[in-house]
Amino acid sequence: MKKIRAAVVGYGNIGHYTLQALEAAPDFEVAGIVRRQGAENKPEELAKYDVVKDIRELKDVDVAILATPTRSVEKYAKEILALGINTVDSFDIHTQITSLRRSLDESAKAGKAVSIISAGWDPGSDSVVRAMLQAIAPKGITYTNFGPGMSMGHTVAVKAVEGVKAALSMTIPTGTGIHRRMVYIEVKEGYEYEKVAAAIKADPYFVNDETHVIQVPCVDELLDMGHGVNLTRKGVSGKTQNQLFEFNMHINNPALTGQVLVCVARASMKQAPGCYTMIEVPVIDLLPGEREELIAHLV
Amino acid sequence: MKKIRAAVVGYGNIGHYTLQALEAAPDFEVAGIVRRQGAENKPEELAKYDVVKDIRELKDVDVAILATPTRSVEKYAKEILALGINTVDSFDIHTQITSLRRSLDESAKAGKAVSIISAGWDPGSDSVVRAMLQAIAPKGITYTNFGPGMSMGHTVAVKAVEGVKAALSMTIPTGTGIHRRMVYIEVKEGYEYEKVAAAIKADPYFVNDETHVIQVPCVDELLDMGHGVNLTRKGVSGKTQNQLFEFNMHINNPALTGQVLVCVARASMKQAPGCYTMIEVPVIDLLPGEREELIAHLV
Repeated sequence: MKKIRAAVVGYGNIGHYTLQALEAAPDFEVAGIVRRQGAENKPEELAKYDVVKDIRELKDVDVAILATPTRSVEKYAKEILALGINTVDSFDIHTQITSLRRSLDESAKAGKAVSIISAGWDPGSDSVVRAMLQAIAPKGITYTNFGPGMSMGHTVAVKAVEGVKAALSMTIPTGTGIHRRMVYIEVKEGYEYEKVAAAIKADPYFVNDETHVIQVPCVDELLDMGHGVNLTRKGVSGKTQNQLFEFNMHINNPALTGQVLVCVARASMKQAPGCYTMIEVPVIDLLPGEREELIAHLV
Repeated sequence: MKKIRAAVVGYGNIGHYTLQALEAAPDFEVAGIVRRQGAENKPEELAKYDVVKDIRELKDVDVAILATPTRSVEKYAKEILALGINTVDSFDIHTQITSLRRSLDESAKAGKAVSIISAGWDPGSDSVVRAMLQAIAPKGITYTNFGPGMSMGHTVAVKAVEGVKAALSMTIPTGTGIHRRMVYIEVKEGYEYEKVAAAIKADPYFVNDETHVIQVPCVDELLDMGHGVNLTRKGVSGKTQNQLFEFNMHINNPALTGQVLVCVARASMKQAPGCYTMIEVPVIDLLPGEREELIAHLV
Protein backbone atom coordinates (compact mmCIF):
# COMPACT_ATOMS: atom_id res chain seq x y z
CA MET A 1 0.00 0.00 0.00
CA LYS A 2 1.28 3.44 -0.93
CA LYS A 3 1.77 5.51 2.20
CA ILE A 4 0.58 9.10 2.58
CA ARG A 5 3.58 11.47 2.60
CA ALA A 6 3.09 14.21 5.19
CA ALA A 7 5.22 17.25 5.97
CA VAL A 8 5.08 18.91 9.38
CA VAL A 9 5.22 22.71 9.04
CA GLY A 10 6.38 24.32 12.29
CA TYR A 11 8.10 22.40 15.03
CA GLY A 12 6.92 23.66 18.39
CA ASN A 13 4.81 21.66 20.81
CA ILE A 14 2.13 20.67 18.32
CA GLY A 15 4.70 19.84 15.64
CA HIS A 16 6.55 17.59 18.05
CA TYR A 17 3.43 15.59 18.98
CA THR A 18 2.22 15.56 15.36
CA LEU A 19 5.47 13.86 14.37
CA GLN A 20 4.91 11.22 17.07
CA ALA A 21 1.38 10.59 15.75
CA LEU A 22 2.75 10.26 12.19
CA GLU A 23 5.39 7.80 13.38
CA ALA A 24 2.69 5.74 15.13
CA ALA A 25 0.32 5.73 12.11
CA PRO A 26 0.45 2.63 9.87
CA ASP A 27 -0.40 4.49 6.67
CA PHE A 28 1.89 7.55 6.83
CA GLU A 29 5.44 8.38 5.82
CA VAL A 30 7.19 11.54 7.10
CA ALA A 31 8.18 13.61 4.04
CA GLY A 32 10.07 16.05 6.26
CA ILE A 33 9.85 18.96 8.67
CA VAL A 34 9.63 22.60 7.61
CA ARG A 35 10.85 25.21 10.08
CA ARG A 36 12.26 28.70 9.96
CA GLN A 37 15.80 27.75 10.99
CA GLY A 38 15.90 24.68 8.70
CA ALA A 39 18.37 21.98 9.76
CA GLU A 40 20.21 24.32 12.13
CA ASN A 41 20.20 23.09 15.76
CA LYS A 42 18.20 20.06 14.67
CA PRO A 43 16.79 18.25 17.73
CA GLU A 44 17.88 14.63 18.14
CA GLU A 45 14.50 13.08 17.24
CA LEU A 46 14.68 14.78 13.82
CA ALA A 47 18.07 13.19 12.95
CA LYS A 48 16.59 10.80 10.42
CA TYR A 49 14.36 13.36 8.70
CA ASP A 50 14.81 16.06 6.09
CA VAL A 51 14.47 19.35 7.92
CA VAL A 52 14.16 22.30 5.55
CA LYS A 53 13.20 25.97 5.40
CA ASP A 54 10.80 25.68 2.47
CA ILE A 55 8.31 22.88 1.70
CA ARG A 56 9.40 22.95 -1.96
CA GLU A 57 12.67 21.35 -0.87
CA LEU A 58 10.77 18.18 0.10
CA LYS A 59 9.80 15.43 -2.36
CA ASP A 60 6.25 14.27 -3.20
CA VAL A 61 4.41 15.81 -0.28
CA ASP A 62 0.73 14.77 -0.26
CA VAL A 63 -0.31 16.81 2.76
CA ALA A 64 1.20 19.55 4.91
CA ILE A 65 0.26 19.54 8.59
CA LEU A 66 0.41 23.15 9.77
CA ALA A 67 1.70 23.24 13.32
CA THR A 68 2.31 26.98 13.14
CA PRO A 69 0.73 29.67 15.32
CA THR A 70 -2.96 30.10 14.48
CA ARG A 71 -2.46 33.58 13.09
CA SER A 72 -0.05 32.45 10.37
CA VAL A 73 -2.19 29.48 9.25
CA GLU A 74 -3.90 31.33 6.39
CA LYS A 75 -0.66 32.61 4.85
CA TYR A 76 1.08 29.21 4.93
CA ALA A 77 -2.03 27.33 3.79
CA LYS A 78 -2.51 29.58 0.76
CA GLU A 79 1.11 29.16 -0.34
CA ILE A 80 1.02 25.38 0.07
CA LEU A 81 -2.40 24.82 -1.50
CA ALA A 82 -1.15 26.76 -4.55
CA LEU A 83 1.48 24.03 -4.93
CA GLY A 84 -1.31 21.43 -5.14
CA ILE A 85 -0.50 20.06 -1.67
CA ASN A 86 -3.32 19.42 0.84
CA THR A 87 -3.18 21.33 4.13
CA VAL A 88 -4.64 20.68 7.56
CA ASP A 89 -4.53 22.95 10.59
CA SER A 90 -5.92 23.50 14.07
CA PHE A 91 -6.86 27.18 13.58
CA ASP A 92 -8.62 28.03 16.84
CA ILE A 93 -10.19 31.49 16.65
CA HIS A 94 -13.83 30.38 16.61
CA THR A 95 -15.20 33.66 15.24
CA GLN A 96 -12.90 33.62 12.18
CA ILE A 97 -13.44 30.02 11.04
CA THR A 98 -16.03 30.71 8.33
CA SER A 99 -13.94 33.47 6.77
CA LEU A 100 -10.81 31.29 6.80
CA ARG A 101 -12.90 28.51 5.21
CA ARG A 102 -14.05 30.79 2.39
CA SER A 103 -10.57 32.05 1.75
CA LEU A 104 -8.94 28.61 1.73
CA ASP A 105 -11.80 27.05 -0.25
CA GLU A 106 -10.85 29.33 -3.12
CA SER A 107 -7.13 28.52 -2.83
CA ALA A 108 -7.80 24.79 -2.48
CA LYS A 109 -10.02 24.62 -5.56
CA ALA A 110 -7.50 26.68 -7.57
CA GLY A 111 -4.71 24.31 -6.53
CA LYS A 112 -6.92 21.19 -6.97
CA ALA A 113 -6.13 20.37 -3.36
CA VAL A 114 -7.98 19.83 -0.08
CA SER A 115 -7.79 21.84 3.11
CA ILE A 116 -9.30 20.75 6.43
CA ILE A 117 -9.28 23.57 8.95
CA SER A 118 -9.82 24.04 12.68
CA ALA A 119 -9.08 20.38 13.30
CA GLY A 120 -7.76 20.12 16.81
CA TRP A 121 -9.98 19.10 19.69
CA ASP A 122 -11.87 22.39 20.07
CA PRO A 123 -12.57 23.44 17.43
CA GLY A 124 -12.26 19.92 16.06
CA SER A 125 -13.36 16.67 17.64
CA ASP A 126 -15.58 18.54 20.15
CA SER A 127 -17.27 20.21 17.16
CA VAL A 128 -18.28 16.78 15.83
CA VAL A 129 -19.88 15.94 19.20
CA ARG A 130 -21.57 19.36 19.43
CA ALA A 131 -23.00 19.11 15.91
CA MET A 132 -24.28 15.60 16.47
CA LEU A 133 -25.94 16.47 19.80
CA GLN A 134 -27.57 19.50 18.18
CA ALA A 135 -28.98 17.16 15.51
CA ILE A 136 -30.29 14.45 17.84
CA ALA A 137 -31.77 16.86 20.40
CA PRO A 138 -32.52 19.91 18.22
CA LYS A 139 -33.85 22.16 21.00
CA GLY A 140 -31.80 22.84 24.11
CA ILE A 141 -28.51 24.31 25.27
CA THR A 142 -25.00 22.92 24.89
CA TYR A 143 -22.35 24.04 27.35
CA THR A 144 -18.70 23.43 26.56
CA ASN A 145 -16.64 23.65 29.74
CA PHE A 146 -12.86 23.59 29.35
CA GLY A 147 -10.14 22.70 31.78
CA PRO A 148 -8.65 23.13 34.20
CA GLY A 149 -5.79 23.06 31.78
CA MET A 150 -3.22 24.99 29.78
CA SER A 151 -4.58 26.63 26.63
CA MET A 152 -1.95 26.43 23.90
CA GLY A 153 -3.58 29.13 21.76
CA HIS A 154 -3.97 31.53 24.66
CA THR A 155 -0.43 30.88 25.88
CA VAL A 156 0.99 31.62 22.43
CA ALA A 157 -1.10 34.81 22.35
CA VAL A 158 0.34 35.93 25.70
CA LYS A 159 3.88 35.16 24.59
CA ALA A 160 3.34 37.48 21.60
CA VAL A 161 2.59 40.44 23.90
CA GLU A 162 5.49 42.87 24.25
CA GLY A 163 7.34 42.55 27.54
CA VAL A 164 6.40 38.92 28.16
CA LYS A 165 9.41 36.68 28.76
CA ALA A 166 7.54 33.45 29.52
CA ALA A 167 3.83 32.67 29.91
CA LEU A 168 1.22 30.10 30.79
CA SER A 169 -2.51 30.64 30.31
CA MET A 170 -4.70 28.28 32.32
CA THR A 171 -8.40 27.85 31.51
CA ILE A 172 -10.59 27.35 34.58
CA PRO A 173 -14.23 26.27 34.08
CA THR A 174 -16.74 28.11 36.24
CA GLY A 175 -19.76 26.25 34.78
CA THR A 176 -22.36 26.79 32.01
CA GLY A 177 -19.59 27.47 29.49
CA ILE A 178 -18.07 30.36 31.42
CA HIS A 179 -14.31 30.38 32.04
CA ARG A 180 -11.76 32.24 34.03
CA ARG A 181 -8.31 32.78 32.46
CA MET A 182 -5.42 32.51 34.91
CA VAL A 183 -2.35 33.91 33.16
CA TYR A 184 1.07 33.38 34.73
CA ILE A 185 3.92 35.45 33.29
CA GLU A 186 7.57 36.28 33.68
CA VAL A 187 8.13 39.92 32.70
CA LYS A 188 11.13 40.99 30.59
CA GLU A 189 13.59 43.41 32.13
CA GLY A 190 12.69 47.03 31.46
CA TYR A 191 8.95 46.35 31.25
CA GLU A 192 6.30 47.16 33.83
CA TYR A 193 4.05 44.35 34.99
CA GLU A 194 0.95 46.61 35.02
CA LYS A 195 1.31 47.65 31.39
CA VAL A 196 2.04 44.12 30.21
CA ALA A 197 -0.97 42.80 32.15
CA ALA A 198 -3.24 45.46 30.64
CA ALA A 199 -2.05 44.57 27.13
CA ILE A 200 -2.81 40.90 27.76
CA LYS A 201 -6.31 41.66 29.05
CA ALA A 202 -7.00 43.78 25.95
CA ASP A 203 -6.00 40.97 23.54
CA PRO A 204 -8.94 39.47 21.55
CA TYR A 205 -8.15 36.09 23.14
CA PHE A 206 -8.86 37.48 26.61
CA VAL A 207 -11.07 40.54 26.26
CA ASN A 208 -14.36 38.63 26.77
CA ASP A 209 -13.26 36.53 29.76
CA GLU A 210 -12.51 37.17 33.41
CA THR A 211 -8.71 37.31 33.21
CA HIS A 212 -6.19 37.41 36.01
CA VAL A 213 -2.53 38.06 35.17
CA ILE A 214 -0.07 36.90 37.79
CA GLN A 215 3.67 37.57 37.75
CA VAL A 216 5.77 34.58 38.79
CA PRO A 217 9.53 33.99 39.01
CA CYS A 218 9.47 30.80 36.92
CA VAL A 219 6.65 29.78 34.57
CA ASP A 220 8.38 26.54 33.68
CA GLU A 221 7.67 25.08 37.11
CA LEU A 222 3.92 25.45 36.51
CA LEU A 223 3.76 23.68 33.16
CA ASP A 224 1.46 20.66 32.79
CA MET A 225 -0.02 19.96 29.37
CA GLY A 226 -3.02 18.04 30.67
CA HIS A 227 -6.38 19.48 29.77
CA GLY A 228 -10.05 18.59 30.01
CA VAL A 229 -13.48 19.11 28.53
CA ASN A 230 -16.95 18.64 29.95
CA LEU A 231 -19.51 19.19 27.20
CA THR A 232 -23.17 18.90 28.20
CA ARG A 233 -26.47 19.17 26.39
CA LYS A 234 -29.97 18.97 27.81
CA GLY A 235 -32.47 19.03 24.98
CA VAL A 236 -35.59 17.86 23.22
CA SER A 237 -35.76 14.94 20.78
CA GLY A 238 -38.97 15.27 18.76
CA LYS A 239 -41.37 16.39 21.49
CA THR A 240 -39.65 14.59 24.38
CA GLN A 241 -37.93 16.88 26.90
CA ASN A 242 -35.00 16.27 29.21
CA GLN A 243 -32.73 14.23 26.94
CA LEU A 244 -29.33 14.40 28.70
CA PHE A 245 -25.93 14.10 27.03
CA GLU A 246 -22.39 14.56 28.35
CA PHE A 247 -18.95 14.23 26.76
CA ASN A 248 -15.83 14.28 28.98
CA MET A 249 -12.12 14.20 28.18
CA HIS A 250 -8.97 14.27 30.27
CA ILE A 251 -6.11 14.49 27.83
CA ASN A 252 -2.59 15.64 27.01
CA ASN A 253 -3.50 18.67 24.94
CA PRO A 254 -0.82 18.86 22.19
CA ALA A 255 -0.77 15.05 21.90
CA LEU A 256 -4.48 15.02 21.09
CA THR A 257 -4.15 17.97 18.70
CA GLY A 258 -1.28 16.22 16.90
CA GLN A 259 -3.32 13.02 16.61
CA VAL A 260 -6.41 14.83 15.29
CA LEU A 261 -4.23 16.62 12.72
CA VAL A 262 -2.90 13.28 11.49
CA CYS A 263 -6.50 11.93 11.27
CA VAL A 264 -7.65 14.84 9.13
CA ALA A 265 -4.48 14.64 7.02
CA ARG A 266 -5.63 11.09 6.22
CA ALA A 267 -9.20 12.27 5.55
CA SER A 268 -7.92 15.05 3.27
CA MET A 269 -6.85 12.35 0.79
CA LYS A 270 -10.49 11.27 0.34
CA GLN A 271 -12.29 14.60 -0.18
CA ALA A 272 -12.99 16.55 -3.38
CA PRO A 273 -10.95 19.78 -3.79
CA GLY A 274 -12.09 22.51 -1.41
CA CYS A 275 -11.95 23.55 2.22
CA TYR A 276 -13.74 21.69 5.00
CA THR A 277 -14.26 21.76 8.74
CA MET A 278 -14.37 18.47 10.65
CA ILE A 279 -18.18 18.35 10.80
CA GLU A 280 -18.22 18.26 6.99
CA VAL A 281 -16.04 15.15 6.75
CA PRO A 282 -17.41 11.61 7.34
CA VAL A 283 -15.91 10.26 10.59
CA ILE A 284 -14.92 7.01 8.86
CA ASP A 285 -12.44 8.98 6.71
CA LEU A 286 -10.42 9.79 9.87
CA LEU A 287 -9.54 6.11 10.25
CA PRO A 288 -7.00 3.89 8.49
CA GLY A 289 -8.02 0.50 7.20
CA GLU A 290 -10.64 -1.20 5.08
CA ARG A 291 -14.09 0.40 5.01
CA GLU A 292 -16.22 -2.69 5.60
CA GLU A 293 -14.00 -3.89 8.45
CA LEU A 294 -14.28 -0.49 10.14
CA ILE A 295 -18.07 -0.62 9.83
CA ALA A 296 -18.22 -4.15 11.25
CA HIS A 297 -15.99 -3.13 14.15
CA LEU A 298 -17.33 0.32 15.01
CA VAL A 299 -20.99 0.76 13.93
CA MET B 1 -38.05 26.19 0.60
CA LYS B 2 -39.35 22.85 -0.63
CA LYS B 3 -39.90 20.53 2.32
CA ILE B 4 -38.72 16.93 2.44
CA ARG B 5 -41.70 14.56 2.17
CA ALA B 6 -41.27 11.61 4.54
CA ALA B 7 -43.41 8.52 5.02
CA VAL B 8 -43.34 6.58 8.28
CA VAL B 9 -43.47 2.84 7.62
CA GLY B 10 -44.70 0.96 10.68
CA TYR B 11 -46.50 2.65 13.53
CA GLY B 12 -45.40 1.10 16.81
CA ASN B 13 -43.35 2.90 19.44
CA ILE B 14 -40.61 4.09 17.10
CA GLY B 15 -43.11 5.13 14.44
CA HIS B 16 -45.03 7.17 16.99
CA TYR B 17 -41.94 9.09 18.15
CA THR B 18 -40.65 9.42 14.58
CA LEU B 19 -43.87 11.20 13.65
CA GLN B 20 -43.38 13.60 16.59
CA ALA B 21 -39.82 14.35 15.41
CA LEU B 22 -41.09 14.97 11.86
CA GLU B 23 -43.77 17.34 13.17
CA ALA B 24 -41.12 19.23 15.16
CA ALA B 25 -38.67 19.49 12.22
CA PRO B 26 -38.75 22.76 10.24
CA ASP B 27 -37.85 21.17 6.91
CA PHE B 28 -40.13 18.11 6.76
CA GLU B 29 -43.65 17.36 5.61
CA VAL B 30 -45.42 14.11 6.56
CA ALA B 31 -46.34 12.30 3.33
CA GLY B 32 -48.26 9.68 5.28
CA ILE B 33 -48.11 6.59 7.45
CA VAL B 34 -47.85 3.06 6.09
CA ARG B 35 -49.11 0.26 8.32
CA ARG B 36 -50.51 -3.22 7.88
CA GLN B 37 -54.09 -2.37 8.88
CA GLY B 38 -54.14 0.87 6.86
CA ALA B 39 -56.65 3.48 8.08
CA GLU B 40 -58.53 0.92 10.19
CA ASN B 41 -58.60 1.87 13.91
CA LYS B 42 -56.57 4.99 13.13
CA PRO B 43 -55.24 6.53 16.37
CA GLU B 44 -56.37 10.10 17.02
CA GLU B 45 -52.99 11.73 16.37
CA LEU B 46 -53.07 10.32 12.80
CA ALA B 47 -56.44 11.94 11.99
CA LYS B 48 -54.91 14.57 9.70
CA TYR B 49 -52.63 12.16 7.83
CA ASP B 50 -53.04 9.68 5.00
CA VAL B 51 -52.70 6.25 6.56
CA VAL B 52 -52.33 3.53 3.95
CA LYS B 53 -51.35 -0.11 3.52
CA ASP B 54 -48.89 0.42 0.68
CA ILE B 55 -46.40 3.27 0.22
CA ARG B 56 -47.41 3.51 -3.47
CA GLU B 57 -50.71 5.00 -2.32
CA LEU B 58 -48.84 8.08 -1.03
CA LYS B 59 -47.80 11.03 -3.24
CA ASP B 60 -44.25 12.26 -3.91
CA VAL B 61 -42.47 10.47 -1.08
CA ASP B 62 -38.80 11.51 -0.88
CA VAL B 63 -37.82 9.23 1.98
CA ALA B 64 -39.36 6.31 3.87
CA ILE B 65 -38.51 6.03 7.55
CA LEU B 66 -38.68 2.34 8.42
CA ALA B 67 -40.07 1.96 11.92
CA THR B 68 -40.65 -1.76 11.40
CA PRO B 69 -39.13 -4.62 13.40
CA THR B 70 -35.40 -4.98 12.60
CA ARG B 71 -35.88 -8.34 10.93
CA SER B 72 -38.22 -6.99 8.25
CA VAL B 73 -36.06 -3.94 7.44
CA GLU B 74 -34.29 -5.54 4.48
CA LYS B 75 -37.50 -6.69 2.75
CA TYR B 76 -39.23 -3.30 3.08
CA ALA B 77 -36.11 -1.33 2.18
CA LYS B 78 -35.55 -3.32 -1.03
CA GLU B 79 -39.15 -2.82 -2.17
CA ILE B 80 -39.08 0.91 -1.45
CA LEU B 81 -35.60 1.59 -2.88
CA ALA B 82 -36.78 -0.09 -6.10
CA LEU B 83 -39.43 2.68 -6.32
CA GLY B 84 -36.61 5.27 -6.24
CA ILE B 85 -37.51 6.35 -2.70
CA ASN B 86 -34.76 6.79 -0.07
CA THR B 87 -34.97 4.62 3.04
CA VAL B 88 -33.58 4.97 6.55
CA ASP B 89 -33.77 2.46 9.37
CA SER B 90 -32.45 1.63 12.81
CA PHE B 91 -31.50 -2.00 12.05
CA ASP B 92 -29.81 -3.12 15.26
CA ILE B 93 -28.25 -6.56 14.83
CA HIS B 94 -24.60 -5.47 14.96
CA THR B 95 -23.20 -8.62 13.36
CA GLN B 96 -25.42 -8.31 10.27
CA ILE B 97 -24.86 -4.64 9.44
CA THR B 98 -22.21 -5.11 6.76
CA SER B 99 -24.25 -7.73 4.92
CA LEU B 100 -27.39 -5.54 5.04
CA ARG B 101 -25.26 -2.64 3.76
CA ARG B 102 -24.04 -4.67 0.78
CA SER B 103 -27.52 -5.89 -0.06
CA LEU B 104 -29.15 -2.45 0.17
CA ASP B 105 -26.24 -0.74 -1.60
CA GLU B 106 -27.12 -2.77 -4.68
CA SER B 107 -30.85 -1.98 -4.39
CA ALA B 108 -30.18 1.71 -3.72
CA LYS B 109 -27.89 2.11 -6.72
CA ALA B 110 -30.35 0.23 -8.94
CA GLY B 111 -33.17 2.52 -7.78
CA LYS B 112 -30.96 5.64 -7.92
CA ALA B 113 -31.84 6.18 -4.27
CA VAL B 114 -30.06 6.45 -0.91
CA SER B 115 -30.33 4.17 2.09
CA ILE B 116 -28.90 5.00 5.52
CA ILE B 117 -28.98 1.98 7.80
CA SER B 118 -28.52 1.21 11.48
CA ALA B 119 -29.28 4.79 12.40
CA GLY B 120 -30.67 4.75 15.89
CA TRP B 121 -28.54 5.54 18.91
CA ASP B 122 -26.65 2.24 19.05
CA PRO B 123 -25.88 1.40 16.34
CA GLY B 124 -26.16 5.03 15.27
CA SER B 125 -25.11 8.14 17.14
CA ASP B 126 -22.95 6.06 19.54
CA SER B 127 -21.19 4.64 16.47
CA VAL B 128 -20.14 8.16 15.45
CA VAL B 129 -18.63 8.73 18.91
CA ARG B 130 -16.94 5.30 18.90
CA ALA B 131 -15.42 5.83 15.44
CA MET B 132 -14.16 9.28 16.33
CA LEU B 133 -12.59 8.14 19.61
CA GLN B 134 -10.93 5.25 17.78
CA ALA B 135 -9.44 7.80 15.37
CA ILE B 136 -8.19 10.31 17.94
CA ALA B 137 -6.77 7.68 20.32
CA PRO B 138 -5.96 4.82 17.90
CA LYS B 139 -4.72 2.35 20.52
CA GLY B 140 -6.83 1.42 23.49
CA ILE B 141 -10.14 -0.14 24.46
CA THR B 142 -13.64 1.28 24.12
CA TYR B 143 -16.35 -0.05 26.42
CA THR B 144 -19.99 0.65 25.59
CA ASN B 145 -22.13 0.15 28.69
CA PHE B 146 -25.89 0.26 28.20
CA GLY B 147 -28.67 0.90 30.64
CA PRO B 148 -30.23 0.28 32.97
CA GLY B 149 -33.02 0.56 30.49
CA MET B 150 -35.52 -1.18 28.27
CA SER B 151 -34.10 -2.54 25.04
CA MET B 152 -36.66 -2.10 22.26
CA GLY B 153 -34.96 -4.58 19.92
CA HIS B 154 -34.65 -7.24 22.61
CA THR B 155 -38.22 -6.69 23.79
CA VAL B 156 -39.55 -7.11 20.24
CA ALA B 157 -37.46 -10.28 19.92
CA VAL B 158 -38.97 -11.70 23.11
CA LYS B 159 -42.50 -10.83 21.98
CA ALA B 160 -41.89 -12.85 18.80
CA VAL B 161 -41.19 -16.01 20.83
CA GLU B 162 -44.10 -18.46 20.86
CA GLY B 163 -46.03 -18.44 24.11
CA VAL B 164 -45.11 -14.88 25.11
CA LYS B 165 -48.14 -12.71 25.85
CA ALA B 166 -46.29 -9.57 26.96
CA ALA B 167 -42.60 -8.84 27.51
CA LEU B 168 -40.00 -6.36 28.71
CA SER B 169 -36.27 -6.86 28.26
CA MET B 170 -34.12 -4.69 30.55
CA THR B 171 -30.41 -4.19 29.88
CA ILE B 172 -28.29 -3.97 33.04
CA PRO B 173 -24.66 -2.84 32.71
CA THR B 174 -22.19 -4.86 34.76
CA GLY B 175 -19.13 -2.88 33.55
CA THR B 176 -16.47 -3.19 30.81
CA GLY B 177 -19.16 -3.64 28.17
CA ILE B 178 -20.74 -6.69 29.82
CA HIS B 179 -24.51 -6.76 30.32
CA ARG B 180 -27.10 -8.78 32.06
CA ARG B 181 -30.52 -9.19 30.37
CA MET B 182 -33.47 -9.14 32.75
CA VAL B 183 -36.49 -10.37 30.80
CA TYR B 184 -39.97 -9.98 32.31
CA ILE B 185 -42.78 -11.91 30.62
CA GLU B 186 -46.42 -12.78 30.81
CA VAL B 187 -46.98 -16.31 29.48
CA LYS B 188 -49.91 -17.16 27.19
CA GLU B 189 -52.42 -19.72 28.41
CA GLY B 190 -51.51 -23.24 27.43
CA TYR B 191 -47.73 -22.57 27.38
CA GLU B 192 -45.14 -23.64 29.95
CA TYR B 193 -42.91 -20.94 31.44
CA GLU B 194 -39.83 -23.21 31.33
CA LYS B 195 -40.10 -23.90 27.61
CA VAL B 196 -40.78 -20.26 26.75
CA ALA B 197 -37.83 -19.15 28.92
CA ALA B 198 -35.52 -21.65 27.21
CA ALA B 199 -36.62 -20.43 23.76
CA ILE B 200 -35.86 -16.82 24.75
CA LYS B 201 -32.40 -17.72 26.08
CA ALA B 202 -31.63 -19.55 22.80
CA ASP B 203 -32.56 -16.52 20.63
CA PRO B 204 -29.58 -14.85 18.87
CA TYR B 205 -30.43 -11.64 20.76
CA PHE B 206 -29.78 -13.34 24.11
CA VAL B 207 -27.57 -16.35 23.52
CA ASN B 208 -24.31 -14.51 24.33
CA ASP B 209 -25.48 -12.70 27.46
CA GLU B 210 -26.34 -13.65 31.02
CA THR B 211 -30.13 -13.78 30.70
CA HIS B 212 -32.73 -14.13 33.42
CA VAL B 213 -36.35 -14.69 32.42
CA ILE B 214 -38.90 -13.79 35.08
CA GLN B 215 -42.63 -14.44 34.88
CA VAL B 216 -44.77 -11.55 36.13
CA PRO B 217 -48.53 -10.99 36.31
CA CYS B 218 -48.42 -7.61 34.53
CA VAL B 219 -45.54 -6.39 32.35
CA ASP B 220 -47.26 -3.07 31.71
CA GLU B 221 -46.63 -1.94 35.29
CA LEU B 222 -42.86 -2.25 34.76
CA LEU B 223 -42.62 -0.19 31.57
CA ASP B 224 -40.31 2.84 31.53
CA MET B 225 -38.74 3.84 28.22
CA GLY B 226 -35.79 5.66 29.74
CA HIS B 227 -32.37 4.30 28.80
CA GLY B 228 -28.73 5.17 29.22
CA VAL B 229 -25.24 4.79 27.80
CA ASN B 230 -21.82 5.13 29.34
CA LEU B 231 -19.19 4.81 26.61
CA THR B 232 -15.56 5.02 27.71
CA ARG B 233 -12.21 4.89 25.96
CA LYS B 234 -8.74 4.97 27.49
CA GLY B 235 -6.19 5.14 24.72
CA VAL B 236 -3.01 6.45 23.15
CA SER B 237 -2.79 9.57 20.96
CA GLY B 238 0.45 9.40 19.00
CA LYS B 239 2.79 8.06 21.68
CA THR B 240 1.00 9.61 24.66
CA GLN B 241 -0.76 7.12 26.94
CA ASN B 242 -3.76 7.53 29.22
CA GLN B 243 -5.97 9.77 27.09
CA LEU B 244 -9.41 9.45 28.74
CA PHE B 245 -12.78 9.89 27.03
CA GLU B 246 -16.33 9.34 28.20
CA PHE B 247 -19.75 9.80 26.58
CA ASN B 248 -22.91 9.56 28.70
CA MET B 249 -26.60 9.71 27.83
CA HIS B 250 -29.81 9.47 29.82
CA ILE B 251 -32.62 9.46 27.29
CA ASN B 252 -36.10 8.38 26.30
CA ASN B 253 -35.14 5.53 24.01
CA PRO B 254 -37.75 5.57 21.18
CA ALA B 255 -37.80 9.38 21.21
CA LEU B 256 -34.07 9.48 20.50
CA THR B 257 -34.34 6.75 17.86
CA GLY B 258 -37.17 8.63 16.14
CA GLN B 259 -35.14 11.85 16.17
CA VAL B 260 -32.01 10.16 14.78
CA LEU B 261 -34.12 8.60 12.02
CA VAL B 262 -35.42 12.03 11.03
CA CYS B 263 -31.83 13.39 11.02
CA VAL B 264 -30.62 10.65 8.67
CA ALA B 265 -33.74 11.02 6.50
CA ARG B 266 -32.58 14.63 6.03
CA ALA B 267 -29.00 13.51 5.36
CA SER B 268 -30.21 10.93 2.81
CA MET B 269 -31.24 13.82 0.55
CA LYS B 270 -27.58 14.93 0.27
CA GLN B 271 -25.77 11.66 -0.48
CA ALA B 272 -24.98 9.98 -3.82
CA PRO B 273 -27.01 6.80 -4.54
CA GLY B 274 -25.91 3.89 -2.37
CA CYS B 275 -26.13 2.54 1.15
CA TYR B 276 -24.41 4.18 4.13
CA THR B 277 -24.00 3.78 7.86
CA MET B 278 -23.94 6.92 10.04
CA ILE B 279 -20.13 7.02 10.31
CA GLU B 280 -20.00 7.43 6.51
CA VAL B 281 -22.17 10.54 6.47
CA PRO B 282 -20.83 14.01 7.40
CA VAL B 283 -22.40 15.09 10.70
CA ILE B 284 -23.35 18.48 9.23
CA ASP B 285 -25.78 16.69 6.86
CA LEU B 286 -27.86 15.63 9.89
CA LEU B 287 -28.76 19.25 10.56
CA PRO B 288 -31.27 21.61 8.94
CA GLY B 289 -30.21 25.10 7.95
CA GLU B 290 -27.55 26.99 6.06
CA ARG B 291 -24.09 25.39 5.94
CA GLU B 292 -21.98 28.42 6.84
CA GLU B 293 -24.28 29.37 9.73
CA LEU B 294 -24.03 25.84 11.14
CA ILE B 295 -20.23 26.00 10.92
CA ALA B 296 -20.13 29.41 12.62
CA HIS B 297 -22.43 28.16 15.37
CA LEU B 298 -21.09 24.64 15.98
CA VAL B 299 -17.40 24.29 14.96
